[in-house]
Amino acid sequence: MTDTRFDVLAIGNAIVDIIADTDDAFIESEGLTKGSMQLIDEARAKALYDNMGPAREISGGSAANTLAGLARLGHKTAFIGQVADDQLGTVFAHDIRAGGIHFDIPAREGAPATACCYILVTPDAQRTMNTFLGASQFLPARLMDRELIESAAILYLEGYLWDPEEPRAAMRTAIDIARAAGRKVALTLSDAFVISRHGADFLAEMEAGRIDILFANEVEIRALSGLEDFDAAVAMIAARVPLLVCTRGENGAISVEDGVRTEVSAEPVTQLVDTTGAGDLFAAGVFAGIAQGRSMAECLTMGAVCAAEVISHYGARPEADIAALVNSRLGQAPF
Amino acid sequence: MTDTRFDVLAIGNAIVDIIADTDDAFIESEGLTKGSMQLIDEARAKALYDNMGPAREISGGSAANTLAGLARLGHKTAFIGQVADDQLGTVFAHDIRAGGIHFDIPAREGAPATACCYILVTPDAQRTMNTFLGASQFLPARLMDRELIESAAILYLEGYLWDPEEPRAAMRTAIDIARAAGRKVALTLSDAFVISRHGADFLAEMEAGRIDILFANEVEIRALSGLEDFDAAVAMIAARVPLLVCTRGENGAISVEDGVRTEVSAEPVTQLVDTTGAGDLFAAGVFAGIAQGRSMAECLTMGAVCAAEVISHYGARPEADIAALVNSRLGQAPF
Repeated sequence: MTDTRFDVLAIGNAIVDIIADTDDAFIESEGLTKGSMQLIDEARAKALYDNMGPAREISGGSAANTLAGLARLGHKTAFIGQVADDQLGTVFAHDIRAGGIHFDIPAREGAPATACCYILVTPDAQRTMNTFLGASQFLPARLMDRELIESAAILYLEGYLWDPEEPRAAMRTAIDIARAAGRKVALTLSDAFVISRHGADFLAEMEAGRIDILFANEVEIRALSGLEDFDAAVAMIAARVPLLVCTRGENGAISVEDGVRTEVSAEPVTQLVDTTGAGDLFAAGVFAGIAQGRSMAECLTMGAVCAAEVISHYGARPEADIAALVNSRLGQAPF
Repeated sequence: MTDTRFDVLAIGNAIVDIIADTDDAFIESEGLTKGSMQLIDEARAKALYDNMGPAREISGGSAANTLAGLARLGHKTAFIGQVADDQLGTVFAHDIRAGGIHFDIPAREGAPATACCYILVTPDAQRTMNTFLGASQFLPARLMDRELIESAAILYLEGYLWDPEEPRAAMRTAIDIARAAGRKVALTLSDAFVISRHGADFLAEMEAGRIDILFANEVEIRALSGLEDFDAAVAMIAARVPLLVCTRGENGAISVEDGVRTEVSAEPVTQLVDTTGAGDLFAAGVFAGIAQGRSMAECLTMGAVCAAEVISHYGARPEADIAALVNSRLGQAPF
């Protein structure tokens, strides 16, 4: 294997989050399921935006958030995703590049607009996401830059983006390129709705040995396995992928690598504000640990530290110096 | 005087803030003066944005922030300001209306874009503002809705908007309408650069009895009076306006109403993050107190409580329940 220029290259949705505080009554009145993600069209986006409270805009997108964390941890990363040629597309591209992430996909001309996620945060810090995919779902396979993909140690795929047709084809092309170059491929399952539509696809990719690292949460691992029992679900999926990382919210996380199970607790959180991005930042910590050749216990702990930071404020990208937080934590017992 | 529909109608810049963390070295390398506000053109805005770090976007504009606070305190307010017909204009209009503020100025077609303020926050929580005025400076006098202005107990003018020609003419028209209807007129001096260009104008308006309430900070009151000594500056200006409110940052605030001086301390702040909007939210608390017929000591304390909340997080609009904070504070000694 030749030297790599990037630790992780991610392909994901290029989204700006529009984040408003709300209460349970509003979630109910809008017919939403708290904690879920649903796709919405432009008309629904406008209606929801008209009804929701004052908001703040912060760049998001699951895999892009992971890269923002990884970059803050000092790692070299690159992003592939599609914005439109509009103000929010400029905001997204600025934030990615200003975070030190390589990004050279040109903005797409004309409609639709850059993707927006209308995020409603309830007082329990739970987030309910409503995503207008806009330009993001028109990422074409021709933008899969062979040289770029070959230059990254890990290709990281956002499950959300497996749903629209054009990016799904693009991601299959990217997997082909990565595997031919001997690179690793990581996938996050993203959401139960993705699994309900593409679970068989994911299992087939794993069966074919095309996925090296799988990220999931408890709901997703159950959905993918079709098993209600968590341990049974983990056992079934872990048998099909070299490394499985499964987050469990306030119950910490586990990994299974070549049959070896590792478990960590969640890190303490002083103020819980907005849980958006917890999984994304957990993945950032794990990828950083892998790039640094650390033990799985250390990798998972790094993930837990990054997740704890991001849920202490609005927005799914780190604000505090997470590299310092990670170093401080790894200097403590049990490490 | 007939009954009023609004407690305060404000005329101000319609701006979306783009807020990034930075350090003193960046402020210096960009040739900026920490703590100041400077106007920038589109080319400079692009260059600065390219150089600055990842940001968050939160609606701003000095008078608009004051109304956001007043609305959160339960008061009826209306806003006049000019956005462009673009995504950030939509964001600004959404946030104003979602905050319960009456706003019916149509978006302006074509260039320039909606105003942006590139705000750099240093670790000491000081903010350095770089404002691209865009569409905001093209607020025409014909949009000064007589019925709307007559329906507000107080007309509040943002000093920043006195600088560009078209809104200055519009604000003079608005003062004429308000005075003819027996309404009060309040003005905030906004920044020393405004005073250096229009101080004589402000003094002439005060001399003519067209300003009832003046908001200033220490730097501004010195600039307007031309006197270095704070008490001498206050005495000179207070003699020219029925109510002067002067904020002094961590040293609290004073008011002089018909010769009677009132003084309060700053409220304690648990975490100081971003001082943007401190003066704007102070004004919100004072206006709320006036609308509620409270003593000046109570009005100033309400201002101090609102200012303390807004500097505890990024962005110049309140996040916490400031009405509850104010009620709790007014329930304590010395009230």
